[in-house]
Amino acid sequence: MSEKLINQTADLHGGNIYKASKQYGISEEAFLDYSANINPLGVPEELKETILRSIELLSNYPDPECHLLRRHISEYLNINPDEIIIGNGAAEIIFLLLEELKPKKVIIPSPTFMEYERAAKKVGAEARHHEIKESAGFRLEVNELINHIDDDTDCIILCNPNNPTSSLTNPDDLIKLIEFAYRKEITVIIDETFIELTVGGNTNSMVKHLNEWSNLIIIRAFTKLFAIPGLRVGYGLGNKELIKRLWDRKIPWSVNCFASISGMLLKNETGYFDRTATWISEEIEQFYNELCKVDKFHVFKPHTNFVLMRIKGISFNSHTLKEALASKGVLIRDASNFRFLNDKFIRVAIKDRNSNDRFMEILDDVLKG
Amino acid sequence: MSEKLINQTADLHGGNIYKASKQYGISEEAFLDYSANINPLGVPEELKETILRSIELLSNYPDPECHLLRRHISEYLNINPDEIIIGNGAAEIIFLLLEELKPKKVIIPSPTFMEYERAAKKVGAEARHHEIKESAGFRLEVNELINHIDDDTDCIILCNPNNPTSSLTNPDDLIKLIEFAYRKEITVIIDETFIELTVGGNTNSMVKHLNEWSNLIIIRAFTKLFAIPGLRVGYGLGNKELIKRLWDRKIPWSVNCFASISGMLLKNETGYFDRTATWISEEIEQFYNELCKVDKFHVFKPHTNFVLMRIKGISFNSHTLKEALASKGVLIRDASNFRFLNDKFIRVAIKDRNSNDRFMEILDDVLKG
Repeated sequence: MSEKLINQTADLHGGNIYKASKQYGISEEAFLDYSANINPLGVPEELKETILRSIELLSNYPDPECHLLRRHISEYLNINPDEIIIGNGAAEIIFLLLEELKPKKVIIPSPTFMEYERAAKKVGAEARHHEIKESAGFRLEVNELINHIDDDTDCIILCNPNNPTSSLTNPDDLIKLIEFAYRKEITVIIDETFIELTVGGNTNSMVKHLNEWSNLIIIRAFTKLFAIPGLRVGYGLGNKELIKRLWDRKIPWSVNCFASISGMLLKNETGYFDRTATWISEEIEQFYNELCKVDKFHVFKPHTNFVLMRIKGISFNSHTLKEALASKGVLIRDASNFRFLNDKFIRVAIKDRNSNDRFMEILDDVLKG
Repeated sequence: MSEKLINQTADLHGGNIYKASKQYGISEEAFLDYSANINPLGVPEELKETILRSIELLSNYPDPECHLLRRHISEYLNINPDEIIIGNGAAEIIFLLLEELKPKKVIIPSPTFMEYERAAKKVGAEARHHEIKESAGFRLEVNELINHIDDDTDCIILCNPNNPTSSLTNPDDLIKLIEFAYRKEITVIIDETFIELTVGGNTNSMVKHLNEWSNLIIIRAFTKLFAIPGLRVGYGLGNKELIKRLWDRKIPWSVNCFASISGMLLKNETGYFDRTATWISEEIEQFYNELCKVDKFHVFKPHTNFVLMRIKGISFNSHTLKEALASKGVLIRDASNFRFLNDKFIRVAIKDRNSNDRFMEILDDVLKG
């Protein structure tokens, strides 16, 4: 029975690949999932082995204060455990933060991850979208954003690198923004969920500036980095006073027993980070160059493991291209429902070389089709 | 490294047994944990095996709407999947419900589980405690509760069977309460987290009355029943309109990939429910009778897998008795911090016969001191 159940589950889980597999009669294994942007190195073996060996943890309540996870993150990022809140994925952190901060008006540079707006609206805040312009290659122009900030703004939420644009804002620009916001008593929340999947990794992070700016909050997760969206581990970094209030507000035991041991992955004892860095440094540029050769797309320069593209000069739109690719065994993300985008935009993951080569072949096929 | 980490984790997890093991130099295996009241049959083998075989689910986003779990619960309780909300343990359901209902004044029959009060206060509600009296054997007297309800009460939260009193309120009395509350437009939330661990199990539940009363909400969890507090699976049952609003409000993906397959346990294919029912029907009465023979306690009649006791006629209080038992390898719950109780009250789990016999021997030892 269990095998059957696993398949049923898989079918219902987020992975469109299961539905698509049935719909198009292509086996799951043969499918290329370019719609999800998690680390293609897959779940670290070390984590799988540890879960298998510690299955009895199921019968213990998780540590509600996640001391072990905080210790690991503290050592990894060289920050104080009191500056760390742990949650059930980045999602819990986003909602918890907005609940605690109760902002009146939130500026959200967009297109971006849609849960920021949902969280802002949930607490009754006005969500104002600052357009990240295609004319700027979908890179955030911080001066423009600063000009957009009016007196009743009390919070800014941005994603860096940003989803779905894959653009990275440099630390100097971000400091300019944080400094401006600090003077205006505006909180700046930076979601760095993809930061380890950029060339340079944590050197692009604002973590090292955390103690300089009390208005800076950083959101992180293990989801993309370790390819474990099923496990649910996210965290927030900020000043001790705020973090204390978040712990007081948080629902107890939201981080499950297996999630609570996943911090061991941060030690890089099996070289997972090194292999990730090698893949990032080789494949982002390589895949971007390959995509640029296809004259049917405008390809926006990616800074992390996915790429935003605009279809041009062909009759496909994002829906029909998605359908056409799915029928050949490739799933992509139709990006038309992101704010300020339209049905000419798609988002495509960047994976290992073999998969990327196969993606290019199939794309070529479909476009010739 | 992983083995070491598992031990570190265990040390930090809720289980006091790890701390106590170190403190008293008694091995964890030799310790009897009578402080936690989960099913002593332990984590069902079927679940462990399924997790081991479906470890790759880690790399999939969990189904945010938990269709598979809802289907299993729907079949188990014969209710519509649209009447089910799934959460990260009962805790998420409690907080989510209070957030959505936004009551002004909540009546909480007490002593009881402390998160109800915390959730009520979090949404700014007044939490009023209706005392469940020792003179009534800590059984809820529904007529008294009804008399206690004033015009500005808009919500009642009760736990049935109740923690820490282990008392069960019968369905007829509950219907009287729900009917009264219905006429007054008061929501009644009944936490049935322990209901399957009573003699009669689901026959004591209000689930069958769910469709008769739109003001009735039931909270459940897999935590106690399947001994899986580490996994985090709770659920709420109520009218479709409310459940829809809860799904809309809920943080996405809060139920992890392994939690989402645990509904298979409800099918009782390995006889876990039958073995649980046998244990319940034999050991609650047996252990109660044994405890009653000890003249140093007033023992309140238990209806589920734990028992509340008041220390009498000896110099021990709840703290010193807890310490004395821990030094002999038994952990109990000092119940002094529950509202309306004091430092003469302890709560003790009910486990399998061998453990219970050993508990009685050690208790005897300590009392003879």
